[in-house]
Amino acid sequence: MDAERAAIAVRPDEQAVRGHGSAQFADWLARTQCSVRDHVDDFVRARCAAELATAGFSLPGQLMIDFASGGKCVRSVFGYLGWLCGGAGESESALRAAASAELLHAFALVQDDVMDESTVRRGGPAVHRRLADWHRRQGLSGSSARFGESAAILLADLYLVWAERMLRESGVTAAALDRAWPHYDAMRSELAVGQLADLTNDANRAPTVGAVLDIARRKSGNYTVRRPLELGAAMAGCDETVMGVLGEYGEAIGEAFQLRDDLLGIFGDPSATGKPTGDDVRERKATTVIALADQLAVPSDRARLRDLWRQAFIDEQGVALAQAVITDSGAGERAEQMIDDRVEHARRLLDVAQLEPSVADALHRMALLCTHRTH
Amino acid sequence: MDAERAAIAVRPDEQAVRGHGSAQFADWLARTQCSVRDHVDDFVRARCAAELATAGFSLPGQLMIDFASGGKCVRSVFGYLGWLCGGAGESESALRAAASAELLHAFALVQDDVMDESTVRRGGPAVHRRLADWHRRQGLSGSSARFGESAAILLADLYLVWAERMLRESGVTAAALDRAWPHYDAMRSELAVGQLADLTNDANRAPTVGAVLDIARRKSGNYTVRRPLELGAAMAGCDETVMGVLGEYGEAIGEAFQLRDDLLGIFGDPSATGKPTGDDVRERKATTVIALADQLAVPSDRARLRDLWRQAFIDEQGVALAQAVITDSGAGERAEQMIDDRVEHARRLLDVAQLEPSVADALHRMALLCTHRTH
Repeated sequence: MDAERAAIAVRPDEQAVRGHGSAQFADWLARTQCSVRDHVDDFVRARCAAELATAGFSLPGQLMIDFASGGKCVRSVFGYLGWLCGGAGESESALRAAASAELLHAFALVQDDVMDESTVRRGGPAVHRRLADWHRRQGLSGSSARFGESAAILLADLYLVWAERMLRESGVTAAALDRAWPHYDAMRSELAVGQLADLTNDANRAPTVGAVLDIARRKSGNYTVRRPLELGAAMAGCDETVMGVLGEYGEAIGEAFQLRDDLLGIFGDPSATGKPTGDDVRERKATTVIALADQLAVPSDRARLRDLWRQAFIDEQGVALAQAVITDSGAGERAEQMIDDRVEHARRLLDVAQLEPSVADALHRMALLCTHRTH
Repeated sequence: MDAERAAIAVRPDEQAVRGHGSAQFADWLARTQCSVRDHVDDFVRARCAAELATAGFSLPGQLMIDFASGGKCVRSVFGYLGWLCGGAGESESALRAAASAELLHAFALVQDDVMDESTVRRGGPAVHRRLADWHRRQGLSGSSARFGESAAILLADLYLVWAERMLRESGVTAAALDRAWPHYDAMRSELAVGQLADLTNDANRAPTVGAVLDIARRKSGNYTVRRPLELGAAMAGCDETVMGVLGEYGEAIGEAFQLRDDLLGIFGDPSATGKPTGDDVRERKATTVIALADQLAVPSDRARLRDLWRQAFIDEQGVALAQAVITDSGAGERAEQMIDDRVEHARRLLDVAQLEPSVADALHRMALLCTHRTH
C-alpha cells in the first residue's frame, strides 16, 4: 500500500497546507483530522478494552490503538468532503462514519506489510515486526517471525470487522447507511481484488502503462479518493450528477496520487519519504513510471532496464541506472504531465458541478495537496 | 480450525444421521444442508462474476465457489435451528442469513491453513497450495509458495466481507438484522481473538485443562455452536430465557465438539478422518486431551510426555508413546466422560426450555451427531 507513503503529505503541517490553500482551509483540515483521530481512538480503545484486554492481550491492544489513529486521514477527509457535498453541513455522525476509513486502511496496511515483507511503517517497525519482537522477548517457542505474521493478520481481521462496525454504529440514519453499503461493499472487494491483481502483475512481463494504471486504480487510487468520496456523498443523498462528478474527480485524483507515489518511490528524498531512495527499483515493482520508461526508452536503454529487472539483487548502481533511464526516456516528465492533466481535469469538473464554493475549494486544495508534494 | 475435521460427521450420510435420529430429522437435515449449499453457491457465483471475473481471475473465482459450499454446514444448521426456536417456522430469508456462516467459516479455514501451514483441507490440497500450483503453472516470477499464501489471505478477506454482506442482504427484516449484529460482531471478534490466544498457547508451558478449554471455546466451540444459535434466535426475537438456554446449550456442545475433535486428533482412524493418526501429536498442539494427560499421568509418564513435546520432530514411535500415556493416564476416558456430561447437561436444558418439541429434538440429535462420531 504505497499510497501511505504519499499520504504523509496530508499532515496538518501548516506550511505545506498553506502552500496549497487558504488559512481557513488549513484550519478546517487540521480540525477535521484531529476529530477523525479522536473518533478512531475512542472506538478502538473501547473495542480493545471489551475484546482484547479481557483475553489478556495488552500489547496487541495498545498496538492497535496507536496504529489506527497514526495515519494522515486522507481517506476520512475525502469521505467527509463527500458528505459535505450533500449540503447538510457539518455532522459528528457523518464524521464518525467517514473516520471508519482509517480502520479499513489500518487493515490494508497491516496485511500488506506482511505480504510485502515490509519492515518499516509510519516511521517505526511494521506491526508484524513489533509482534515478532514481543514473541521473542516473551521467550515463547516456535518461530517469532511466523508468529508476528500470523498475529498481524489476525489484528488486521479485527480492523476490517471493526471498520464496518464503526460505520454501522456511527449514528448516521438507517436510510443513509442503506445508501452507503453498496459503495462500501464495492470498495472492500475492489481493494482485495486490486491486491490480487498486483500479486500477479509481473514486472518481467513488461505490462503496459494502461494495465499498471488499471491495477493502481483498483488497488489504491479508488480506495484512497473515489470510493470514500462516493460513500460520503451517498450517505448525504447526493444526486446522480454530483455522484458522477465526484466519481470522475476521484478517479483522476486517485490516479494522480498514485503517479506521484510512483515518482517518489524512485526519486524521493530519503529524508522526506522516510524510505531509501529508489525503493521501488530495489523491490522491482511494476509501477506506472517503470512502465512509462519501458514504453518511451530507446531500444538499448529498454534492454538495460529489462535486464536489470531480471537481477536477483539490485544495488545502488542498479538504482542509479534505472533512475537515469527513466529521466533520459522522458518517463519522469511524462508522469509529471499526467499528474498535471488529471489535477486540471478534476478542477474543471469541480467548476461545473455547482457545489458549495467552500467544498469545491477544499476538494481542489486536497487534490493539490495529494499530488504535489515531496514526501 | 480443527473443528472442521469434526464437522465431517455432519454429512447427510443416511446411516450416521439415522443412528442419532428419526427419519424425519434425517430428511430435514439433508434438505436444510442442501438449501444452505444452494444459497451459498448462488451468492458466491454472483459475487465472483461481478468482482473476480471482471478482473480476469477465473481460477480464484472457481476455487472460491467450490470451497464455499463444500462444507458440512454445521454452523448454518445451528443458526437456522436458532431461528426455528422463535416459533415463526421455516423461512428462506432466515435460512439464507444462517447460510452466511459458511462464508465466515470459509474465511477462517483458508486463513487458518496459511497460518498452520496445513497442506490438506476438505479432501484436497489447501487453498493456498492450489494457488501456489497455479502460480507455478503460469510460470510467474517470484516464490510460488509466498504467492499462494498471500493470494489465499486475500480470498479469505473476500469471504469475510461477503459473509457479512450475505447476512445483510439475506432478506430478513431490518429489525431482525439489528438484533443480530451484536451477536455477529461478538462472534467475529471472538474468532480472531481466540486464534490469537491459540498462537500464544504454548504446549511447552503445560497449560491447564481449563486454560485450553477456554481457548477452544473462544476459537471454535462458541463459533461452531453457540454464536450461530444465538444469532438465529436473536433474529427470530427469542426472549431472554430462550437465549439463555441456547447460550448454555451452545457452550456445552461446543466444548464437547472440541473434545471429540481433540480425541480424533490423537486416536482418529486415518481412513475415516482423512488425516494421519496422531496428527495433533506430530504438530505438538496443546489440546484438551494433552492437557488432561499432563494433569492425570503418573510423574514418570508426565516427564516422558513433556520431553516428547520438546523434540524438534515427532515420529511414529513418539505418536505411539503419546497415545499410550494418554490411555494409561485415563485422559482418554476422562475426555469421553466430559463429552457425555456436556451432552447430558445440554439435553436437560432443552427439556426445561419449553421449545417446540421438533426443534428441541433436532437440537438434541445435532448434539449427538457432533459429539459422537468416528470422523
